[in-house]
Amino acid sequence: MSPSSLDELIEALRCLPGVGPKSAQRMAYHLLQRDQRGAARLGNALLHALEVLRHCARCNSFTEDEVCPRCANPRRDAALLCVVEMPADLAMIEQTQSYNGLYYVLMGRLSPLDGVGPRELRLDKLIARATEEGVREVILATNFTNEGEATAHTVASLLGARGVKVSRLSRGVPVGGELEHTDIGTIGQALIERRAV
Amino acid sequence: MSPSSLDELIEALRCLPGVGPKSAQRMAYHLLQRDQRGAARLGNALLHALEVLRHCARCNSFTEDEVCPRCANPRRDAALLCVVEMPADLAMIEQTQSYNGLYYVLMGRLSPLDGVGPRELRLDKLIARATEEGVREVILATNFTNEGEATAHTVASLLGARGVKVSRLSRGVPVGGELEHTDIGTIGQALIERRAV
Repeated sequence: MSPSSLDELIEALRCLPGVGPKSAQRMAYHLLQRDQRGAARLGNALLHALEVLRHCARCNSFTEDEVCPRCANPRRDAALLCVVEMPADLAMIEQTQSYNGLYYVLMGRLSPLDGVGPRELRLDKLIARATEEGVREVILATNFTNEGEATAHTVASLLGARGVKVSRLSRGVPVGGELEHTDIGTIGQALIERRAV
Repeated sequence: MSPSSLDELIEALRCLPGVGPKSAQRMAYHLLQRDQRGAARLGNALLHALEVLRHCARCNSFTEDEVCPRCANPRRDAALLCVVEMPADLAMIEQTQSYNGLYYVLMGRLSPLDGVGPRELRLDKLIARATEEGVREVILATNFTNEGEATAHTVASLLGARGVKVSRLSRGVPVGGELEHTDIGTIGQALIERRAV
């Protein structure tokens, strides 16, 4: 008995990750009853983003241009290519202010259980980019989760076979970390990857 | 350095209840990368719902018409008016199939801490509706939370002062409930509200 446009809105909200039927209902009521301006803003932002956003021809991240401003910046070191899973990871590395090379954003990770293999992740695009002239080193900065590690491993094999120099972010005890409160897996890895001082 | 239409989408997603900056980012990437069709659907559903949905002139719930089909149904008992907080509560009562009267949906509850008083909740509209000729009894079915109880109490006073017969859903042990696993507040209330058999 509820109006079809309300049903459709509730159903459409379920395309958001982590939103089930109950939260979708709660969100719809909230938007319609308490925040119509926010609802209009969100509706327009979605349609506008779909219209203007595309993938950068160089780094594969989202951009409104053919090549994003970062890749087009001549002051960045084109000899370094850092591979990350998502734009959010790129943003974290930028915030460290300790990297001035370029990026390649996979927009995901290998995840065989979800049907994401090398083909779905378009690793051919990464290989083409990484084997371009001028790239001296590819730094793998995928997550240190199982899927991120597997992705790094696969990419390292593919690029290594093509003679590309590949490195990986180091693992170890976090800065400011106390051994007592660090998980033993990390401590074990920090022992294995210990470095001379 | 991220494109403005992406920033705007992430910011706009934060108008959803319970969505902070991190989930908004995750949602935006998911929609743009994995579910563009869902994103378009959601964008259109939002704008369409805003355009066509309004409040029923009788029950205050969402409808696309001046008066919703339920209120316009001559086979429902217009002598009974059940007051609920949200359309979801109405849907629950309908599912019991044990009520054939009409409804009034408050679209919220009294919540002084959030600045929702009798004026913001438009209790004047409820009073006007409940004092119409033909209404024999108003059944308060707000939640049994603190705010729902306070709302019921206020509505009962306002309507009682105008000579309207008011009742409240009974409290007690849930159907199928075992005393051992029922909270003592509920058992206490079930004792006070015991009824002759």
